[in-house]
Amino acid sequence: MQIRIASGKILNGREDENILQTCKKHGLYLVASCGGKGICGKCRIRIVQGEYRTASTGKIPAEDAASGVVLACQTVPKSDISAEIPKESQIVVGDVLELPRINDLLETFLSSGRTVSPLVKWVPLELFPPTIDDNISDLERLKKTLGSAGFADMRFSYALLSAMAAVLREAQWSINLGYVDGPEAVILLPSSEKAGCGLAADIGTTTIVLCLVNLGDGALIDVGSTYNSQIRYGDDVITRIVHATESGGLAELQDAVVTDLNDLMLPLLEKHNLTEKNIESIVISGNTTMTHLFWGLNPRFIREEPYTPTATFFPLWESAIAGLKAGEQVPVYTVPCVASYVGGDIVAGILSSNMHQQSTVSLFMDIGTNGEIVVGNNEWLVTAACSAGPCFEGSGIRHGMRATEGAVESLALDPHTFEPSLKTIGNSTPIGICGSGMIDAITELFLTGLIDQRGKFTKDRDTKRIRDGVEGPEFLIYSDKSRDIVLTEVDIENILRAKAAIYAGVSLLLKKIGMTLDSIERIYIAGGFGNYLNIEKSIIIGMLPDVPREKFRFLGNAAIAGSYLCLISDHMRREAEEIAGKMTNVELSVSRRFMDEYLSALFLPHTDISLFPTVGKLLKNRA
Amino acid sequence: MQIRIASGKILNGREDENILQTCKKHGLYLVASCGGKGICGKCRIRIVQGEYRTASTGKIPAEDAASGVVLACQTVPKSDISAEIPKESQIVVGDVLELPRINDLLETFLSSGRTVSPLVKWVPLELFPPTIDDNISDLERLKKTLGSAGFADMRFSYALLSAMAAVLREAQWSINLGYVDGPEAVILLPSSEKAGCGLAADIGTTTIVLCLVNLGDGALIDVGSTYNSQIRYGDDVITRIVHATESGGLAELQDAVVTDLNDLMLPLLEKHNLTEKNIESIVISGNTTMTHLFWGLNPRFIREEPYTPTATFFPLWESAIAGLKAGEQVPVYTVPCVASYVGGDIVAGILSSNMHQQSTVSLFMDIGTNGEIVVGNNEWLVTAACSAGPCFEGSGIRHGMRATEGAVESLALDPHTFEPSLKTIGNSTPIGICGSGMIDAITELFLTGLIDQRGKFTKDRDTKRIRDGVEGPEFLIYSDKSRDIVLTEVDIENILRAKAAIYAGVSLLLKKIGMTLDSIERIYIAGGFGNYLNIEKSIIIGMLPDVPREKFRFLGNAAIAGSYLCLISDHMRREAEEIAGKMTNVELSVSRRFMDEYLSALFLPHTDISLFPTVGKLLKNRA
Repeated sequence: MQIRIASGKILNGREDENILQTCKKHGLYLVASCGGKGICGKCRIRIVQGEYRTASTGKIPAEDAASGVVLACQTVPKSDISAEIPKESQIVVGDVLELPRINDLLETFLSSGRTVSPLVKWVPLELFPPTIDDNISDLERLKKTLGSAGFADMRFSYALLSAMAAVLREAQWSINLGYVDGPEAVILLPSSEKAGCGLAADIGTTTIVLCLVNLGDGALIDVGSTYNSQIRYGDDVITRIVHATESGGLAELQDAVVTDLNDLMLPLLEKHNLTEKNIESIVISGNTTMTHLFWGLNPRFIREEPYTPTATFFPLWESAIAGLKAGEQVPVYTVPCVASYVGGDIVAGILSSNMHQQSTVSLFMDIGTNGEIVVGNNEWLVTAACSAGPCFEGSGIRHGMRATEGAVESLALDPHTFEPSLKTIGNSTPIGICGSGMIDAITELFLTGLIDQRGKFTKDRDTKRIRDGVEGPEFLIYSDKSRDIVLTEVDIENILRAKAAIYAGVSLLLKKIGMTLDSIERIYIAGGFGNYLNIEKSIIIGMLPDVPREKFRFLGNAAIAGSYLCLISDHMRREAEEIAGKMTNVELSVSRRFMDEYLSALFLPHTDISLFPTVGKLLKNRA
Repeated sequence: MQIRIASGKILNGREDENILQTCKKHGLYLVASCGGKGICGKCRIRIVQGEYRTASTGKIPAEDAASGVVLACQTVPKSDISAEIPKESQIVVGDVLELPRINDLLETFLSSGRTVSPLVKWVPLELFPPTIDDNISDLERLKKTLGSAGFADMRFSYALLSAMAAVLREAQWSINLGYVDGPEAVILLPSSEKAGCGLAADIGTTTIVLCLVNLGDGALIDVGSTYNSQIRYGDDVITRIVHATESGGLAELQDAVVTDLNDLMLPLLEKHNLTEKNIESIVISGNTTMTHLFWGLNPRFIREEPYTPTATFFPLWESAIAGLKAGEQVPVYTVPCVASYVGGDIVAGILSSNMHQQSTVSLFMDIGTNGEIVVGNNEWLVTAACSAGPCFEGSGIRHGMRATEGAVESLALDPHTFEPSLKTIGNSTPIGICGSGMIDAITELFLTGLIDQRGKFTKDRDTKRIRDGVEGPEFLIYSDKSRDIVLTEVDIENILRAKAAIYAGVSLLLKKIGMTLDSIERIYIAGGFGNYLNIEKSIIIGMLPDVPREKFRFLGNAAIAGSYLCLISDHMRREAEEIAGKMTNVELSVSRRFMDEYLSALFLPHTDISLFPTVGKLLKNRA
């Protein structure tokens, strides 16, 4: 069967192959966090012509189903068909958010006098071709030439040796040898070729971001992102650890995340006329559990007292060990972790913030599914885990989505008509709401009195935008012929829980180390929110502390930025290791005091309004 | 279906499973060089009771088939059956030949003041168990303890780390860490356990021998041997290289030899109540092609001018790379090779002969399928390839067999009645004839006048033992109710070709380096012949040069002996590397002079009888 898609492209499907599989075969990657089981409901497409059979999943409202909307994973064409594949159902290649941020980072890096120094170093070698009088083995010949070039002790892996005979002859004995510290040879290419590109990944509990980088000049070529398909086994690290300890679970979790990375990598490469042979090194960062799962290491003891991971500093392993579809020898650098609940993502985040180089004290907040907070300066760094849950990344929110094109990223309500004015990423038609949009929406709903201090819709406002949905009351943010975008009371409750956990974490950590907000010079906010996070509104809902606004800096996805820096620089990898080595961890979540702080922070902005003086003044003025 | 075998053991087979498969499943390994395709005819068994269906293969004479003889690989029971599995159809575990030779070698080794020093060194470590206040990662904890024990720079492989968390806890933090030079950690065990055993293998083109060794004291525990199943793809290295370059061929060849080794290893371990967890290191030796095939390295360029192998000195790789069923991290040491046609088997052989330590000049002859000859002393070593073909190992000879229990290893003929008197290995009932028996047989047939100088049966002798067989005239060596053992004219022709190649090789190598036999003080003969090789008779047929008999030393399988020495001693591994480093290779087979020498040596003993003065005298006396 043939599937014609809007671009005019024709996909040839096998009999009985579902549309998700056919798309993947043709390099069109749909979001399918559940692995194609009809559970996550993310691979929605619309069939505009042709016959098909589809399984009913309860994920498609009746009126949508009537207009041909189906889940690609549950649908098999019965004739040639035409289909529309909406943007939100596709893996995002060409992320519009991180490109400028990382370009700024590279500019700062280069202007500080540093040079690009990737993981793999290259040495060009001219070997004498063998003759009947000089027919020593290929390896001895290579070692001899390397010896003259000053590399007497190079180690060689099996994978390199097993391909060597063919490469040397194809190269007519003129080669580029790529090696890593050891020194160990990892890539052998004809002298006419050099790989030249690298990948930096941030493996979040909810979101995976992948950067494709030119390692010649450090320039970011492109960014892709998708949901972490491990979501099908649970939203948080704990449920995933539990799944990993069940039979076959660890392999399933590893396969899910590695498949996501491969599904991001292949279209990114194709888009830029590159192949996996162009990849010479990879950096990954993730929290400690994500890092263990990526490498297929059992995370069981992360969860059991006294909470010890298998490793925090990882050897340089080749991509084939994880199952990445780069050359099997391509070295993968793992950004070091600190402890079971302080991972490489936070180390990478601190690295990109540069707070570890400043003499003044900063506060760093990574607001992600497995968020962490860090206080410190160039002498000390103290950290605590502080999970916001997946909601700011769009997961568990009715029309939530990651901060990619089409997401509502900011929002204001007319105080009289309650009509919203929206701004979307890329100025596109809205298709969902991302973290920064959620914060704006709750603030506006709160300030206009549509929700109360507990986040419940008030009954006495006269607007059709508040309506009863399937999950209870909801606010209609946007509507057009193809979709409604709402924020439900359940969504709001989820978001309040997230912001309360964050505020409680900051508050308790500072108390534990005997500091006050006054002594903090700078507050870095990281997370996948949108182009910018509205600091004012984040303070109004009580997520961020009520301190002078100029102290705040919004970093976006700081983990991918740090991962990128590690990809392009030896120096940055050393700094990351120093950060991981000196960071100390404080346990918050086990303490009774944390629960007290958390419950107080569940209100808008907080039960103790004296902690939010400017918000108190604002509310008083409104009243 | 159940199969009852002579020992009374019951094997449970699945429906449609052939008897070869059922036997293997129960740890009873039959010889099946063709991989169970009904081609090699080696897995003969006799079904004494029960119903079965069997495919006709032309490998079983009609009268044998009538008495229930079948190929196990072609036979499926239709009811419960009883079967006799003759010794010659089974892989040999408990080789009677090599045990005493290797015990002598160990005695010499120890009496020279050397100590047993295997590849893997062990360090006992007591780790502090983690607590909530000291919960650094397992790897950091291990590294810290290693640092205090003086091992700051230990490297860790993925396989070790992926099992580490479980082992440390099972061991209650009290461990034995096995490491190799680097240093690199390779085996982690609870302190109550130590692997303790090693394997030394000689991978011959025709025969594979495997030693199981106690690495505590170096004692040989047992020896097993079998045919190299690669035989199904060709008898010699050239046809195997050709096969390796065909699609999928390399993987098939690697799988064949690794399966053979696993099939030898498992019953050896079981017999001595050991498991694969007891194996801590492995040494293999083989000619350069066998070594490449074992490691799955493409041998293509070994065969193409200018004949360059991929490697001659191999890194220490783990057993999982080859597919051996030892622990995946168990290091495998490869005895170094010299050149494309001078392999690790000859290096191991020289090592076991000790000629490389003597100031006088010796000649070393390894008479195997891919035989080699070496001349030299403690200052220089010159070698040349000199293939005898597989016949002395029983392959390609009608009733040929390896030198294992039941093989006719020596033979004399009554000069008047032509009745043979036989001696078999283990003094068992004869089941075939091995290399030393073949040499004896030809000498006796020649001296009694039953064959002429060209190896053809003479017509004028009156004995029923010369008869017409399916392949032409043959001599009946032995007969009982279950079998005849014959030597055919075709067999004799094969053996004459082998001995001519060897003699021509020695003769031409000495001429090339400008030496004569007089300057050789000692001649070492290696090969899988039998308990001893009759030197006198080997000279009479013209395989060995006619020099004073006291110069000869018969070493048996010298390659497995050298492989064994490398398994038990760092010092011996260094010596092997020195031997490989200083040996120089002379090409003989490409020269026109070799063909001349070879053709002259095809006669009994030689066309130029002046080269064999004592044989000439003997023949004159007889006449």
